[in-house]
Amino acid sequence: MSTKIVIIGGVAAGPKTACRVKRLMQDSQVTIIDQDSLISYGGCGIPYYVSGDVSDEKELRSTSFHMVRDEAFFENAKGVTVRTRTRALSVDRKSKTVEVENIENGEKDKISFDKLVLATGSRPNRLPIDGADLQGVYTISDMHKAIAIKEDLAQGKVGRAVVIGGGAIGIEMAEALGDLWGVETTVVEYMPQLLPRIVDKTFAGMVEKHLRDKGVTVLTSESATRLERDDNGWVCRVVTGERSIDTDLVVMSVGVRARSELAREAGLLVSPQGGIVVNNRLQTSDPDIYAAGDCIETINLVTGKKSHAPMGSLANRQGRVVADNLAGIASTFDGWIGTFILKAFNVSIGATGLSLEAAKAEGYDADIAITAQSDRAHFFPTQTVVLLQMVFDRKNRRVLGLQGFSSMGEEVNDNVLARINASAALIAKGATIEDFIDLEMAYAPPFATALDALNATANVADNVATGRLRTVSVEDFLSWMDNRDSRKEWAALDIRHPAEAQVFVDTFGKEQWVSVPYVEIRKRYKELPTDKKLIIICDAGTRSSETQSFLDSIGMENNLVLGGGFNVIRRLPINWWPD
Amino acid sequence: MSTKIVIIGGVAAGPKTACRVKRLMQDSQVTIIDQDSLISYGGCGIPYYVSGDVSDEKELRSTSFHMVRDEAFFENAKGVTVRTRTRALSVDRKSKTVEVENIENGEKDKISFDKLVLATGSRPNRLPIDGADLQGVYTISDMHKAIAIKEDLAQGKVGRAVVIGGGAIGIEMAEALGDLWGVETTVVEYMPQLLPRIVDKTFAGMVEKHLRDKGVTVLTSESATRLERDDNGWVCRVVTGERSIDTDLVVMSVGVRARSELAREAGLLVSPQGGIVVNNRLQTSDPDIYAAGDCIETINLVTGKKSHAPMGSLANRQGRVVADNLAGIASTFDGWIGTFILKAFNVSIGATGLSLEAAKAEGYDADIAITAQSDRAHFFPTQTVVLLQMVFDRKNRRVLGLQGFSSMGEEVNDNVLARINASAALIAKGATIEDFIDLEMAYAPPFATALDALNATANVADNVATGRLRTVSVEDFLSWMDNRDSRKEWAALDIRHPAEAQVFVDTFGKEQWVSVPYVEIRKRYKELPTDKKLIIICDAGTRSSETQSFLDSIGMENNLVLGGGFNVIRRLPINWWPD
Repeated sequence: MSTKIVIIGGVAAGPKTACRVKRLMQDSQVTIIDQDSLISYGGCGIPYYVSGDVSDEKELRSTSFHMVRDEAFFENAKGVTVRTRTRALSVDRKSKTVEVENIENGEKDKISFDKLVLATGSRPNRLPIDGADLQGVYTISDMHKAIAIKEDLAQGKVGRAVVIGGGAIGIEMAEALGDLWGVETTVVEYMPQLLPRIVDKTFAGMVEKHLRDKGVTVLTSESATRLERDDNGWVCRVVTGERSIDTDLVVMSVGVRARSELAREAGLLVSPQGGIVVNNRLQTSDPDIYAAGDCIETINLVTGKKSHAPMGSLANRQGRVVADNLAGIASTFDGWIGTFILKAFNVSIGATGLSLEAAKAEGYDADIAITAQSDRAHFFPTQTVVLLQMVFDRKNRRVLGLQGFSSMGEEVNDNVLARINASAALIAKGATIEDFIDLEMAYAPPFATALDALNATANVADNVATGRLRTVSVEDFLSWMDNRDSRKEWAALDIRHPAEAQVFVDTFGKEQWVSVPYVEIRKRYKELPTDKKLIIICDAGTRSSETQSFLDSIGMENNLVLGGGFNVIRRLPINWWPD
Repeated sequence: MSTKIVIIGGVAAGPKTACRVKRLMQDSQVTIIDQDSLISYGGCGIPYYVSGDVSDEKELRSTSFHMVRDEAFFENAKGVTVRTRTRALSVDRKSKTVEVENIENGEKDKISFDKLVLATGSRPNRLPIDGADLQGVYTISDMHKAIAIKEDLAQGKVGRAVVIGGGAIGIEMAEALGDLWGVETTVVEYMPQLLPRIVDKTFAGMVEKHLRDKGVTVLTSESATRLERDDNGWVCRVVTGERSIDTDLVVMSVGVRARSELAREAGLLVSPQGGIVVNNRLQTSDPDIYAAGDCIETINLVTGKKSHAPMGSLANRQGRVVADNLAGIASTFDGWIGTFILKAFNVSIGATGLSLEAAKAEGYDADIAITAQSDRAHFFPTQTVVLLQMVFDRKNRRVLGLQGFSSMGEEVNDNVLARINASAALIAKGATIEDFIDLEMAYAPPFATALDALNATANVADNVATGRLRTVSVEDFLSWMDNRDSRKEWAALDIRHPAEAQVFVDTFGKEQWVSVPYVEIRKRYKELPTDKKLIIICDAGTRSSETQSFLDSIGMENNLVLGGGFNVIRRLPINWWPD
């Protein structure tokens, strides 16, 4: 007798499970239930549909060979039955049935299963503030919302927009609105930085500056407290603790939470945070019921702790694992490390593993190495700077995370991706700084430098970890620059070409900003002040590191290197920057 | 007393060692000796200098902050003494001296050392054929050759060129000559494919077709037997076993061999293949003498065997290891896996680990998975196809190698690089197919697909390894297509859109080339011939895999899938391709 498999949820993990299990067990009966009419869409593509990069919403629901993944497609091509506009009301584990309701006509019936898969996804958070449910306030949760936003844009209703939440989706939406539609866009983030918890403040700052350069207003450490309506019931104003912002549209992208009510009501284990509890074969507390995708909690392989990781890439992998187990193949999903990449206008930012802040919060004795080097051979015409930050555990030299940032031209540049992916492979394996030093990256001048930027970052991490390189963090450097009193205790030693240093010498005075070029330090070190701590600054940090080594050797050890140097700080939103 | 360190060789490993050891031991005396006047250049950049992408040879010898790395730079910036135009004649290990000769004036003297580093590099092979030393015949060995070639080009002397050797440098030189100088270029390779030993024939074929599309003549399985001269002693013709080719310039890029004479004469251990023997701290058989770079042999971490791996990226890493050990830090260089990337006009090709052919030659029970998928979300405007081939050991599912290929637009695209680097990280760790399935690649629509092409390739490898997917190799498919007799025993089942299949049906007949679209197979399978083996073909292999699974389930198991499908074969030089 053929196995009856019922899958609740038709976006990512659900269809992936369905198609794979059908391939593995052609004689099984596979049914997907979804309350929506539109299924199997690339939700991460919504910003590109809104922007107009993707002209038709059907493209987000199509295969690479341009067939729309609708009910007929699943039936004909996959042999999988899909019931859309069908809500799962409850699961009866004893009788092994799901009670469902046809949303069109309210009819209810029961579907029996041998195995059930919960792929119920996540639900976007909505701030509990007045006006959060006004017309014109959208979460980025499904295709219908995306279509509605785009219609508002296309009808010329939107001159100004406010994005509440400066995470990845918020930034992508800010680009979608600002770049192609010319909407005057403001991002409001209640944390002190964009992309909180994902990257550290320095890297978030580089994104913030770029957004500002592209005309987006970015307000951090600021909370929306109230949304106001116009006479038609449409949102017209966002009020924060600091100001009120007129707007025609609000995008609320303040995180998501697992949809686990059905599981909870069926008596399955759900974590206090709301994620369905599964083992590494993705079985719930009922071995005949599996769960996958945004509705579950899984293990962070760096910290070893379970948490919620709502990512499309994981949902796809999990779907495969569920299908395998349904078919008797003992696949496992052992966890995730949190690999991320984002395009924001003409920059890319990526991360994998833990940020420094996250690592410290987890109790690690964590430190960083930051570099700013050419992505390609410096003589190759299209080379640009790629900024990398490695987070490592001082105790055992384990690498906990890596962040990357780069500018791009008109085309998307995968220079950050190439370093993030290699790092993800190693970090998931518990790799140390040595493993990154030994990592054999591909080299040819059009693609990389002979010593790849990622290897160079590992070399710097080695120098930091062993105490051979003493650095000042970008944040400390900036706070010193902001504080006239503390400035008396130190001086910048700018070892770039004197012509580059001059404007800083003019602005801050030659006591505060000393210019001696790198190649002359060995001859001119006697000119350096000895009563102050020296902050050695070059473009990328490499020359500074060498200079520190020389100064130390002659007993002038009261110095620190600014990691990443000007290549970092010139990319940050800094108010003291000389014109 | 300060340690005297003498380094013989000033290109890559030598300067890297010198600069790092000086940083670690500022009181050491570090001297680099090189017989050339030009040192510390990016040798891999020579094709880009010849092409004109890099306008001045000094750029290949400059830092990223635009200072030329000459003797004065090393002295002032690094505190390292460089003696150029100085040939090391012999090493006296007892007295710890190197006898050197000033090439300018013939004067000899001795330099004493506490520690010696041999970074003597490699020497390009020259075919032992008549005319190999004629004027106009160049190897790509140093900056002077590069400058001479570019002068010939700039003076308009070169209308036609022959590149002997279709390895990476040969292909880069063919591009340099053909693309920007419009030289009519022929590549002659004695093996049956380009890039022999580095990639397999299918991937080499894609490069070959692209070179041809760009106007380069490619002759494989063909050896140059003689070079002929004109009345001025200049090369004017390349004679092969098949033809004679008029030419104005010959580039001979037929591999390199380690320069180890000095080591051998000093009584140090040198392998039968000519590489200096070192331990993993890069010490030679004399513990006070280290060696690094192209002159040594090191361990291939996949096979466990020592061999010669002349790569600039390894030379840099090895220089660091030597410096560390000189300074008493116990760093090791444990080996390499052979990670490679190449730009050839508007395609990129990369590889890491072993090719299928190399794996079989090493005795592995090796098999492959080949995919041809979108690099980015298929709805993202700039997406293109990235072709990946995973080589794995059937016995233990260990991944032995990965190859990648993609087309690029005007700008260099790092889509292959991103997959190669991640694979290199895992392969060096002895990873299995499962590790690649679990690899957490970064995903956002502008950069990747939700299930990354590399994960997808691992999934296919899993299906192949477990026998759930039966494939025909591209080579077998092509040889069947070339052979009218064997064609009787099989038929192509083209499951693409009938409009795409039609020209093949018209060309080969509907008995030989059956068109039933993917979505109709479940309804129309009865139309399929049952007396022949079916070769299922789609664009990428994914639909074919599904179709196989369905056909198997109804007992029609006499079928194979063409891995990678049309996305592979349309990129190959095929003479039966219908117009």
